Amino acid sequence: MTRSAFAAGTAYIDGRYMPIGEAAIPITDWGYRRSDVTYDVVGVWDGNFFRLDDHIRRFRASMQKFRFNPKESDDDIKAVLHRCVALSGLRNAYVAMDCLRGRPAPGVAYHPINARNYIAAFAIPWIWVMSPEVQARGAQFIIAETLRIPPSSVDPTAKNFHWADLTRGQFEAHDRGADFAILLDSDGNVTEGPGFNIFIVIDGTVVTPDAGVLEGITRKSVIELCQELSYPHEVRRVSAAEARGADEIFAATTAGGIMPGSRIDGRILGNDRPGPISAKLRETFWAKRANGWHATPVDYDMLVANVA
Amino acid sequence: MTRSAFAAGTAYIDGRYMPIGEAAIPITDWGYRRSDVTYDVVGVWDGNFFRLDDHIRRFRASMQKFRFNPKESDDDIKAVLHRCVALSGLRNAYVAMDCLRGRPAPGVAYHPINARNYIAAFAIPWIWVMSPEVQARGAQFIIAETLRIPPSSVDPTAKNFHWADLTRGQFEAHDRGADFAILLDSDGNVTEGPGFNIFIVIDGTVVTPDAGVLEGITRKSVIELCQELSYPHEVRRVSAAEARGADEIFAATTAGGIMPGSRIDGRILGNDRPGPISAKLRETFWAKRANGWHATPVDYDMLVANVA
Repeated sequence: MTRSAFAAGTAYIDGRYMPIGEAAIPITDWGYRRSDVTYDVVGVWDGNFFRLDDHIRRFRASMQKFRFNPKESDDDIKAVLHRCVALSGLRNAYVAMDCLRGRPAPGVAYHPINARNYIAAFAIPWIWVMSPEVQARGAQFIIAETLRIPPSSVDPTAKNFHWADLTRGQFEAHDRGADFAILLDSDGNVTEGPGFNIFIVIDGTVVTPDAGVLEGITRKSVIELCQELSYPHEVRRVSAAEARGADEIFAATTAGGIMPGSRIDGRILGNDRPGPISAKLRETFWAKRANGWHATPVDYDMLVANVA
Repeated sequence: MTRSAFAAGTAYIDGRYMPIGEAAIPITDWGYRRSDVTYDVVGVWDGNFFRLDDHIRRFRASMQKFRFNPKESDDDIKAVLHRCVALSGLRNAYVAMDCLRGRPAPGVAYHPINARNYIAAFAIPWIWVMSPEVQARGAQFIIAETLRIPPSSVDPTAKNFHWADLTRGQFEAHDRGADFAILLDSDGNVTEGPGFNIFIVIDGTVVTPDAGVLEGITRKSVIELCQELSYPHEVRRVSAAEARGADEIFAATTAGGIMPGSRIDGRILGNDRPGPISAKLRETFWAKRANGWHATPVDYDMLVANVA
């Protein structure tokens, strides 16, 4: 197989590399059939991973929370990610790593403790969760009727594919002519949206929820940027009313960075365009990344014998 | 490809039949990556589907609740299931049908409304959720600390793979030396276990929860059997205390039928063996099935040209 077969993307599944088009999960695997899987996503921009070690650390923590124990070490996983990007030759890539439960062998008790867990990973061309056009005009958010799955059922700090609530929220957004849903918890506090953390700006203070959410790595980067730019910032409960009455609102995610909003529940924020603090944070985020902030260069020479 | 290649099981994915070992879901499909999928499972025992039309009706209702719209009609799906069983030649089979979201094509907005939904299905040798040995001694249940995902987040009547809560419950059961977890809702009422509905028997009355659960087809069959056997029965809220103090307890599922318990939270029920009402229901269930109750014979001559 030649390297060009991998240009559309490269995957690794349980020890083997392959073109992304061949990468698939057995229909009987509990990783699919019980969504018994955890994952993480790291971005590669201009040939550099962003905060690679942070993502690997969170991925390992997620695996431990769900009691996954694959054969690969953290260094092995890092090498897999470098190789997936190197084989595909991508300079801007969306790089995912999954750990799946697998499935007990026939004849063994039908319990997750009897399954052999394994790693899958892939690099594909960069995906914008929110298109650059929407980012420029500012996303239109709604607060969904559907509530986020609570931490008493599924730990939101362990990244998972339990997205039916988020997907239902996205249909609510569609039906109401908006771009993205924000979900509340059962106490009426803001949690997160489909694949992103939420920030609001009130009287110059940047605020993000402290509970019921993924501890996002872009979220962490926003907090660092607030410190650097001397913006007051708080990590605390955020009520739906506060979000609806905010001066600015933005989302934060690996596959999108800092994504400003312009409306919430139909209410126009500012000039129906990204607010000044959101815009400044976004601009600073990408400027610093271009200058090597938290960057790990992809080792493009790191190819492997078993795919030659 | 010869028919023998299908003997371990047969799958259908989006129009194509294949041996089960080749059946897989693309790693980038939202059916896997966002668990944006619904499913159903129908049993084949001694060459007969059990309540096939009920399963097809529920599968269609689940698809509508999640806003899936695949190309296959109900009759098409029935034909697919007959063919999967016929190609594998199985007399006792676990027959699953899934409808997956798919994924938006590149360049189209990254929203589930833009994905083409499709059907996957397979027949494999019968699986016992609870082994016959455990059924004979009676399962040991625990009430888990983990709570069931609430209906305000994910509709439990639309069958789905959001199982992280149930899986965590199964680890709790393992850690406490028991077989199966039962999950409560946030009000402390019994919901369901991993893949089954729960029934308790109190003073001769058979009781099952009315809310926050899958409307199980074996559950419905149990209610019909109670009517036939003149057992008093109620469908209503069931508190954890009632379950802990019950005279008998049993689970009901397609891949297991009526599965009696012998302990809950370490407390021994009766003689540490299945109780008399549970045992009578189980015996009657299988006796009636052997006599063609709600049976649809598999059309074993229904093979297809495209796999010849």
